[in-house]
Amino acid sequence: MKAVALLGGPKSQWPAFMKKQIFAAKKRDSLLIGVDRGSILLAELGLVPDLAVGDFDSLKKNELNIIEQYIPDMRYSVPEKDLTDTELMLKYAFEDYQINFLTLLGATGGRLDHFMTNMLMMLKPEFNAWAEKIEIIDQQNLVKFYNPGNHTIKRRPGYTYFGIVTLSEVKNLNINGAKYNLSSYFNSYPISLSSNEFVQHNLVNVSFNEGVVAVIQSKDINRFQKI
Amino acid sequence: MKAVALLGGPKSQWPAFMKKQIFAAKKRDSLLIGVDRGSILLAELGLVPDLAVGDFDSLKKNELNIIEQYIPDMRYSVPEKDLTDTELMLKYAFEDYQINFLTLLGATGGRLDHFMTNMLMMLKPEFNAWAEKIEIIDQQNLVKFYNPGNHTIKRRPGYTYFGIVTLSEVKNLNINGAKYNLSSYFNSYPISLSSNEFVQHNLVNVSFNEGVVAVIQSKDINRFQKI
Repeated sequence: MKAVALLGGPKSQWPAFMKKQIFAAKKRDSLLIGVDRGSILLAELGLVPDLAVGDFDSLKKNELNIIEQYIPDMRYSVPEKDLTDTELMLKYAFEDYQINFLTLLGATGGRLDHFMTNMLMMLKPEFNAWAEKIEIIDQQNLVKFYNPGNHTIKRRPGYTYFGIVTLSEVKNLNINGAKYNLSSYFNSYPISLSSNEFVQHNLVNVSFNEGVVAVIQSKDINRFQKI
Repeated sequence: MKAVALLGGPKSQWPAFMKKQIFAAKKRDSLLIGVDRGSILLAELGLVPDLAVGDFDSLKKNELNIIEQYIPDMRYSVPEKDLTDTELMLKYAFEDYQINFLTLLGATGGRLDHFMTNMLMMLKPEFNAWAEKIEIIDQQNLVKFYNPGNHTIKRRPGYTYFGIVTLSEVKNLNINGAKYNLSSYFNSYPISLSSNEFVQHNLVNVSFNEGVVAVIQSKDINRFQKI
């Protein structure tokens, strides 16, 4: 079973047609998850999450009443916990619901310490095994995570660029088939190799021996947006 | 001399009253810098950068003509370069203009590989010496960077939370005076310790022996923003 989770990031960063896509996922029996404020945001879109995780302290009492009435599985977290609500949600979704793929929405913009947690949690031993089963999608980006090995990255329709972000020390990183290739690259600290592009076949090969790598496909959007 | 640089990130992530603040900085003789599309965004706000850096390939010809006419120092980058436009700008600003502090605006949102470059460039040996002289400000966040040592972090008015992001391996990290403290923490990979808070005196002490640490002060904003 696949899952879609909406986090509390700002609506301005939501991907286009998000509501439509969540409805379609729900139709295909994907598990729908709200993380903290994401639960009420889903309700506002007319979508009832199957699972909600959070301390819900940013919700008003009547908002909490609404979601408690309709959501079949509510999991309450405590603020002094070691794990964030999103990290707790990963555990529930992959362990209890045995999902095999998770799309994170509302995971960008907003508070940057939250966003950095969403990126860097893939490095933690307790979540790392799920890293390749998680994607983050927002208005301009598709982020996927890779553990050591040989990976073929396929250009997703609509995206123009890709960047490689090594989230930790990386050994023997190779990029082949791209506009800018790389051979046997080593770095002891994280680095973002941005603004690369797909060329023929829309396929790129990325391999490395150690570390975790995020591949970010991205696109430009209409620059004349309103402030 | 201080400097303010506007990058090409989306307007939706700009801090409140940004235009006013840039005008005030200009009055105090701060150096005003446009990075690539940020140059034309400044012009649209009625502000002429003192320095513009970029390949400017996202600008239309008439836009480029406008900024070439008014900006006294235009530096053209080549796309196949090793450094990003923002990294090049750091070199020009700190080396050629001898600035002693830099505020980055428009550095968040948008393409996430760009944002990650803006965070992770502080780790590179050629920029690391300037890390403590750079801040990133957007709608909800103030990000400052620290090299090893003992640092007193002061709560900036209007911000509620703070998070510590270790951008690389960190040794002997201590957090004192905060809601959640930490003692002799070690981690071999980056981690985001989010949602901490200032308590009395609005001061927190952060010390560590190795690595680079980002301290992100953040706040919630009106959640009923328009999509």
